[in-house]
Amino acid sequence: MAAVTPDEHERQQDGHCRARVNLRPAAARPFGAAARAALKDTLFPDDPFRGLGGMPPARRAWRVARYFVPALDWSAGYSAASFWYDLLAGVTIANLSIPASATPPSQASLRSSASVSSDHEEGIPQRYSCFVPPLVYAVMGSSRNLGVGPVATSSLLVASIVGGKVRASDDQRLYTQLVFTSAFFTGVLQAALGLLRLGILVDFMSRPAITGFMGGTAIVIMLQQLKGFLGMTHFTTKTDIVSVLRYIFHNTHQWQWQSTVLGVCFLIFLVFTEQVRRRRPKLFWVSAMSPLLVVVVGCVFSFLIKGHKHGIPIVGTLKRGINPSSISQLKFQPEYVGVAMKAGFVSGMLALAEGVAVGRSFAAMKNERIDGNKEMVAFGLMNLIGSFTSCYITTGAFSKTAVNYHAGCRTAMSNAVMSVCMALVLVALAPLFRHTPLVALAAIITSSMLGLVKHREIRRLYEVDKADFAVCAAALLGVVFSTMITGLGVAVAISVLRALLHVARPSTSKLGRVSCGSGAGAGAADDDHAFCDVAQYPGAATAPGILVLQVAGSPVCFANAEYLRERIARWVEDEEKAVAGEDLLYVVLDIGGVTAIDSPGIEMLREVHGELERKGMKMAVTNPRMAVAEKLVLSGLAELVGESWMFLSNGDAVAACRYTLQGSKHGGVPPV
Amino acid sequence: MAAVTPDEHERQQDGHCRARVNLRPAAARPFGAAARAALKDTLFPDDPFRGLGGMPPARRAWRVARYFVPALDWSAGYSAASFWYDLLAGVTIANLSIPASATPPSQASLRSSASVSSDHEEGIPQRYSCFVPPLVYAVMGSSRNLGVGPVATSSLLVASIVGGKVRASDDQRLYTQLVFTSAFFTGVLQAALGLLRLGILVDFMSRPAITGFMGGTAIVIMLQQLKGFLGMTHFTTKTDIVSVLRYIFHNTHQWQWQSTVLGVCFLIFLVFTEQVRRRRPKLFWVSAMSPLLVVVVGCVFSFLIKGHKHGIPIVGTLKRGINPSSISQLKFQPEYVGVAMKAGFVSGMLALAEGVAVGRSFAAMKNERIDGNKEMVAFGLMNLIGSFTSCYITTGAFSKTAVNYHAGCRTAMSNAVMSVCMALVLVALAPLFRHTPLVALAAIITSSMLGLVKHREIRRLYEVDKADFAVCAAALLGVVFSTMITGLGVAVAISVLRALLHVARPSTSKLGRVSCGSGAGAGAADDDHAFCDVAQYPGAATAPGILVLQVAGSPVCFANAEYLRERIARWVEDEEKAVAGEDLLYVVLDIGGVTAIDSPGIEMLREVHGELERKGMKMAVTNPRMAVAEKLVLSGLAELVGESWMFLSNGDAVAACRYTLQGSKHGGVPPV
Repeated sequence: MAAVTPDEHERQQDGHCRARVNLRPAAARPFGAAARAALKDTLFPDDPFRGLGGMPPARRAWRVARYFVPALDWSAGYSAASFWYDLLAGVTIANLSIPASATPPSQASLRSSASVSSDHEEGIPQRYSCFVPPLVYAVMGSSRNLGVGPVATSSLLVASIVGGKVRASDDQRLYTQLVFTSAFFTGVLQAALGLLRLGILVDFMSRPAITGFMGGTAIVIMLQQLKGFLGMTHFTTKTDIVSVLRYIFHNTHQWQWQSTVLGVCFLIFLVFTEQVRRRRPKLFWVSAMSPLLVVVVGCVFSFLIKGHKHGIPIVGTLKRGINPSSISQLKFQPEYVGVAMKAGFVSGMLALAEGVAVGRSFAAMKNERIDGNKEMVAFGLMNLIGSFTSCYITTGAFSKTAVNYHAGCRTAMSNAVMSVCMALVLVALAPLFRHTPLVALAAIITSSMLGLVKHREIRRLYEVDKADFAVCAAALLGVVFSTMITGLGVAVAISVLRALLHVARPSTSKLGRVSCGSGAGAGAADDDHAFCDVAQYPGAATAPGILVLQVAGSPVCFANAEYLRERIARWVEDEEKAVAGEDLLYVVLDIGGVTAIDSPGIEMLREVHGELERKGMKMAVTNPRMAVAEKLVLSGLAELVGESWMFLSNGDAVAACRYTLQGSKHGGVPPV
Repeated sequence: MAAVTPDEHERQQDGHCRARVNLRPAAARPFGAAARAALKDTLFPDDPFRGLGGMPPARRAWRVARYFVPALDWSAGYSAASFWYDLLAGVTIANLSIPASATPPSQASLRSSASVSSDHEEGIPQRYSCFVPPLVYAVMGSSRNLGVGPVATSSLLVASIVGGKVRASDDQRLYTQLVFTSAFFTGVLQAALGLLRLGILVDFMSRPAITGFMGGTAIVIMLQQLKGFLGMTHFTTKTDIVSVLRYIFHNTHQWQWQSTVLGVCFLIFLVFTEQVRRRRPKLFWVSAMSPLLVVVVGCVFSFLIKGHKHGIPIVGTLKRGINPSSISQLKFQPEYVGVAMKAGFVSGMLALAEGVAVGRSFAAMKNERIDGNKEMVAFGLMNLIGSFTSCYITTGAFSKTAVNYHAGCRTAMSNAVMSVCMALVLVALAPLFRHTPLVALAAIITSSMLGLVKHREIRRLYEVDKADFAVCAAALLGVVFSTMITGLGVAVAISVLRALLHVARPSTSKLGRVSCGSGAGAGAADDDHAFCDVAQYPGAATAPGILVLQVAGSPVCFANAEYLRERIARWVEDEEKAVAGEDLLYVVLDIGGVTAIDSPGIEMLREVHGELERKGMKMAVTNPRMAVAEKLVLSGLAELVGESWMFLSNGDAVAACRYTLQGSKHGGVPPV
């Protein structure tokens, strides 16, 4: 028997693999360094302070300040032309905000959800909310398009959580204080998340989930506006579609047709101007001005006909003046701090997700980048300072951002312009809005919600990815038929489970050689080739007696170790049956796509190695990456497999296997 | 200017890639087929019914029956020799079980945790528990080594949950009924999980978590045994180390030194025999018999000296006879069903995880395979039938399995032997155990727990994988310092978060060409090469103007889309700086290791493509897999990138880029 001698084997190995698999530096890498590198890459993917070390202290401080305060970054090159655009955009979104700040969506929903009997009570906080936060955002925000303001979803959420503790109708003062306190906690949470660089948390709210959630919320808010459209004075505290419709049809005696007629007219006008804007983007100011026009016309109309006596409820007395300080109003007593914290944290997470998603969507249209962590800090400061100045929770608002974008804003300065306009109105013009019919506000809110049910995007999801569609539909239906928290919870849970399922079931596939070089033949020495999934490329060539398996798509870890063991065993069995005549002698595991392995994963590989050895097969490993090689060495598995059975490429591994196979066919034994 | 003509480009493409990237069949695959394939691979990784279609009905039925009832599988080839081994092993584990069934760990802990004042009450269910379930397992179980019986952890859990509703000292009958009912729900849950093929759930309890949990639980149970060792008659219901030690040192007046002396003697004897077994595995019967010996000696000793009058509490009257039916005792009233369900489900999950883990560990030592789903069904039936016959929750018990394995069992028949031995003892010998000193049982339990704190495995985890060690330590400390549920919850939460982190932060790396063929030079036409991480292989050759980036380790999805966008942008920026002189013109994305992509992932690729185009760079994609190619086509991204810019291998992509690069340097424009 002409056995392959160790020397021959060595030479063959060397011939086929001049560059050995690199295990050494990995093994030497200390835990601290590896953990630091992993942590840095996890939390600072953008690595903001590269190359700071070499700078003089003053420049370094300036660079750090510029990083943390984006206004310093853009103000350096700020020109009169830019200001002109920002001024225009700012006035436009202020137009949108003034009626909204008189009664923003949140107030309408707050009122309805708190089911107050009178619409004339004092001290509803939201009427101030648009003034201070935009100023903060103008300085701290990293997005150039975002228009900030209160949003309906988080307002409703705060209202429902705080309302569970104190009803606004029972103790208006305490209720307001709790709302401010929850804004404070929102600010603390958001700023802390940003400073801890946990922008990563927001990543787990997927866009399909947000789409479904926004669509469902828009439907719920539109349902709430039926109160205004029907001129009803009472309303249910529930938000799900079944309860709301049941309440409405059980209370037909409250309906007042005058409100309905006026509301439908307003709505048709608003939808028409929106259509005009869509067809002719240059006429954006028509649709941007129309909410203010509706409010003005509504005011004049209801003042002239004394609408509140003829079935058209009006807003009532508005408090005039600038936001008072509310620092002394924050309630940190143990009795209330729990509910304020809960309201603040839950709606804060939600507001963050919504604001960041809105910012991202528009930034993507301009090919700009938004830093999730900076946005978090900006939102946090916005709400912290807001809670000190009688403001409600604010975030990036979709409709405002859309208008800001279409109006051609250049920087966050447009938010400052909006803020100044708001302040002027609050100081000088507040009494004018007294006669605003509630139905006018309902029409404005409804028209702005219509665009948020993105049926086209939902249909597209259905076409491209059924699982994403399921997430989106679950969120939408959850919000509509239950509560907003249910919808969001279900959507996030499905998303997370889906991500976990990817981890639990990584992909294994049998690879074959696909030639794509200019050389001829499928021999070992052809020009260029790739090892691809034989299921995808049925023409891929496999070598008899050698099975190349690829494991990819997930780290090899506790969640999939058992699955992989079974799946690899099944591949081997299938292959044994397929090559019934000849023996299967080599199993090459391509783990180049495996980025990490934990100890159950290592145990799995050890078991696979043992099982194959028992069957008289040899296991080879292709291209272990740094983190994996490290563990292979530490656990002793590298030694068990043998370093000469670790290869850089599948081609190399197959060539080596084939070489020893030929040796053994001619009477030699495969070197083990 | 000698521009590259379309024809030339086509030829070049063809020359370099005879096999085009396969996008078509993927696009044609209907959703139903794809979903079915994914579901089948997720739930039936072992694909048990392959090739059934071609068989005659009778054989097919036989094969299915053999699949579901493993006993049919092994009984066909069962021989007298095998039975001899099983008999020996069965008698051995019965020896271990008889004292344990008189007062198994669960009873001791049940008693202590229920804090009963008298040790003489009737009707404690556990004394029956070892009789029926092993018979069921002998028929249904897929493991050949597993010894079944009640385990301390799930018993303690049931005791603490049911004890929260009804104290055993208040209403012994109701308490017992609730314990049976919880066993019923455990059975239902386990069988349902098995039938639904959700063995996947157990995968998320990682081995490090189970190691920590078992170690912590062993410590807690040993602490509970201090009651026996100190001869105390009352004990605290808490299980955490602080509460237990505080109770013990606040009640020094209860201590009785006689029990301590006797207990320490027994413990030394048991530990000594265990050491004998370890040094000389052939003497396993010494350690296997020693528990029974301790019980017998203890009985005789306390009978002779009337121990219960001299500070040595005894077991007291044992009910004689076989298990009565308990079907009529199950409580399904709304008042109790909740607590029974909770106890049953929580401890059922735990028992399942423990039993499957134990089965796997020993199967791995014999290179056998265990089917998680079959085990679930077997455990479920075991507990269902057990709940009808006055049995407590049972599962695979570690100590019993270890003894069974060392005693040389061949099949699950050893469980049947154990069961018969138990029945004989229950019918004929029960009164003999009346005088058993409680401290003897405490010593037996303590000695069996000593081996469960696997300090060597924990130290090994620390060396190989710090994150796994953290999971293990969290579970252990959680159990010891809080409750078992806390410990398990913390461990599972850390494991899941870690898995999610892998999804949120996939690996990106810059690849370079490492030659490992026998050809010479690093030219495009060399023999064999691999593209490897340049951080791992510093010698890897990169082509100027071309950046090859690999994305691997996770599906590209909502959780990492934004991260990948930022990370890829940073790689491109770094590369631009690094090749300051020359232009970076091509970015090759190697997504061969990406197994799935969702719609936010697609959007990310679209944004990256747009961003690169804005910079005047061209994006190429290497080796998209079937599922990914499908989405690329459906979403229109394949068209955007251009099919001629999708390659099978990195080598091919680089060669094509280099070719067009040369063309453009000589005055041509890169084809877009």
